[in-house]
Amino acid sequence: MTIPWQLARRAARLNPSTIREILKITERPGIVSLAGGLPSADTFPVAAMREATERVLRDQPREALQYAASEGYGPLREWVAGELATMGLRVDASQVLITTGSQQGLDLVGKVLVDPGSRVAVESPTYLGALQAFAPFEPEFVPVEGDDEGPDPAALAAARGARFLYLLPNFQNPSGRCLGAARRDSLAAAAEAAGLPVVEDNPYGDLWFDAPPPAPLAARLGDGAVYLGSFSKVLAPGLRLGYVVPPKALFPKMLQAKQAADLHTPGFNQRVVHEVIRNGFLRDHVPTIRARYKAQRDAMRAALQRHLPAGCRFNAPAGGMFFWVELPRGLDATALLPRAVEAGVAYVPGAPFFVGDAADRHANTLRLSFVTVPGPVIEEGVRALAGVLKEALAQ
Amino acid sequence: MTIPWQLARRAARLNPSTIREILKITERPGIVSLAGGLPSADTFPVAAMREATERVLRDQPREALQYAASEGYGPLREWVAGELATMGLRVDASQVLITTGSQQGLDLVGKVLVDPGSRVAVESPTYLGALQAFAPFEPEFVPVEGDDEGPDPAALAAARGARFLYLLPNFQNPSGRCLGAARRDSLAAAAEAAGLPVVEDNPYGDLWFDAPPPAPLAARLGDGAVYLGSFSKVLAPGLRLGYVVPPKALFPKMLQAKQAADLHTPGFNQRVVHEVIRNGFLRDHVPTIRARYKAQRDAMRAALQRHLPAGCRFNAPAGGMFFWVELPRGLDATALLPRAVEAGVAYVPGAPFFVGDAADRHANTLRLSFVTVPGPVIEEGVRALAGVLKEALAQ
Repeated sequence: MTIPWQLARRAARLNPSTIREILKITERPGIVSLAGGLPSADTFPVAAMREATERVLRDQPREALQYAASEGYGPLREWVAGELATMGLRVDASQVLITTGSQQGLDLVGKVLVDPGSRVAVESPTYLGALQAFAPFEPEFVPVEGDDEGPDPAALAAARGARFLYLLPNFQNPSGRCLGAARRDSLAAAAEAAGLPVVEDNPYGDLWFDAPPPAPLAARLGDGAVYLGSFSKVLAPGLRLGYVVPPKALFPKMLQAKQAADLHTPGFNQRVVHEVIRNGFLRDHVPTIRARYKAQRDAMRAALQRHLPAGCRFNAPAGGMFFWVELPRGLDATALLPRAVEAGVAYVPGAPFFVGDAADRHANTLRLSFVTVPGPVIEEGVRALAGVLKEALAQ
Repeated sequence: MTIPWQLARRAARLNPSTIREILKITERPGIVSLAGGLPSADTFPVAAMREATERVLRDQPREALQYAASEGYGPLREWVAGELATMGLRVDASQVLITTGSQQGLDLVGKVLVDPGSRVAVESPTYLGALQAFAPFEPEFVPVEGDDEGPDPAALAAARGARFLYLLPNFQNPSGRCLGAARRDSLAAAAEAAGLPVVEDNPYGDLWFDAPPPAPLAARLGDGAVYLGSFSKVLAPGLRLGYVVPPKALFPKMLQAKQAADLHTPGFNQRVVHEVIRNGFLRDHVPTIRARYKAQRDAMRAALQRHLPAGCRFNAPAGGMFFWVELPRGLDATALLPRAVEAGVAYVPGAPFFVGDAADRHANTLRLSFVTVPGPVIEEGVRALAGVLKEALAQ
């Protein structure tokens, strides 16, 4: 006898990640994968982690292994507040909610702020993981068009009444773009004029190559912004450690949502990370990641300039992990992927990063990661990709 | 200028945890707290954890610190499937979804299965953390009445049409009750007859004192059950490691919900725990927890028998962490708590574990933990509690 399960309506909005499915295909040996969104494992501070775990398990094992506060580990919350102050964002440590990766921050934002049918404004393209986090809460996504400098401030008026505008201003995944100070100013002013709260996600901001990005929009918007950060790109993603900083009035509901979701972020991980970073470790460590990624960026830029056929368009990102490439009109990056894989290279098509019919209009875009394979392999991968594109253009 | 935030309707169902608020009051020094729900930190296998973290960071640091599969670490999923088989529950490792504590399993169940207004059947009393996990998805809770042996199978017919029945059959938090084999059989039959799926939560099953509990209901219900387990009580809760085992047809949606919620459970923690347990560590370790908790159970039983005034009712639990006490009618455990704290002892009132008007009818109940303070302190705490009760009865 079969007992019937009935799914919640929102389950229809849960779907396999396109990118995840692509990554499965491309993990075959012999494929140069420029598709991943992973940081380079060469940057993981293994020795520091080993020392920190030893110290935590020696000095505070009972506290580190016991249930802990849903807000997060106090000294880590203080550290985050101090770090944000150096970026021009003044918040109280009591506003810092430690999350199980910043992905969980996005889930909590969706849970607390999004009703079925709520409008949620997003960049075009936007971070796919945010779309996936918000989608089960059944919003109507509203794309905000823009240019290479970022979303168009004049477009925000049309988003009036949306629950919030989701922005990833620094070295965006997927586009690589970083908003300048002037664009941030005008976007903040436009958001205020439209009464539109901003959810600002900043996983890549520390990965700048020549100069740090301008202060976050949250520094301009105060209680009009929720800010999210992560330790995944500067330490290691396998620890799942991030944070969300809501305005004081929102904090209690975010905290209660966090408690309902997983009680608290692993206290062991929080104490280990705090032990690693408490004495300024990142000030020496992060520059080594920047230097490495900058060299890889240069290698990919050179390879793209050398090999890509005429009519392709890309900007070299000033930080982060990704190049964004626009192919000549008429080429479809999703349709070409199997041929690229056959030729030995993988990438992520750009279409899934757009909402609504923008996905079709941008079928000619793709994302390339420059941080997971070394320079010579990047060259090889880009050459293979260029071969596929030239062949397609010739047809 | 203030930008307005608008909360989702479900945020009204997020509220401060009563117990959490109580625990804050009772963490003052000098109070004997029998209120906590924490395992004893004396049981944490610190030396084994230290060795395991060393090995993981020596042998597989890149894998342990990198992004990982949303399903969980393969060998840990295999281990869980093997362990469940020894309890009579045959599942495939591909059905095991590793979660960030079993609390997250409850959140995912709510997300995938509960619509606003859906009926969700629960024991009376039931685990408060489950109510908190499900509540934001706006169910209507339906209490299933029962007796000391468990929920009444005859009462399940009235729950027909509910999305599921949530059960915690082994040494329940808060009641301490453990369902016998016959009651499990009749409940499983009644659930099948009513077409009512079961969500079975088992955080305490390993903590039996004299004999292991009967096989899970999930072993009787097959695809009619979702099963949840946890490493929090046999290893350490600060690692936040649990698992949920949905039927194969439900697995993809649960997985996608997991991915949206936090991408994956920390791979570092999964590998460390697998390294600790892979060679049978728990077969030696868990009996030491059982012996410790059994002695503490005995100490609390003796103290309760010695001190509680006539008219109080309790059963000694056969495992787990909690005594459930019914005070004489007319006494209100919530109202008495401040007096108890003044007298130097804290407990958790039973009312928050009931849904609807059952909370008022059971105002005379309370939960006592016997695992966090040593035997002589339990004696002291119970004597203080008894003093408060006798005084109240005399008034």
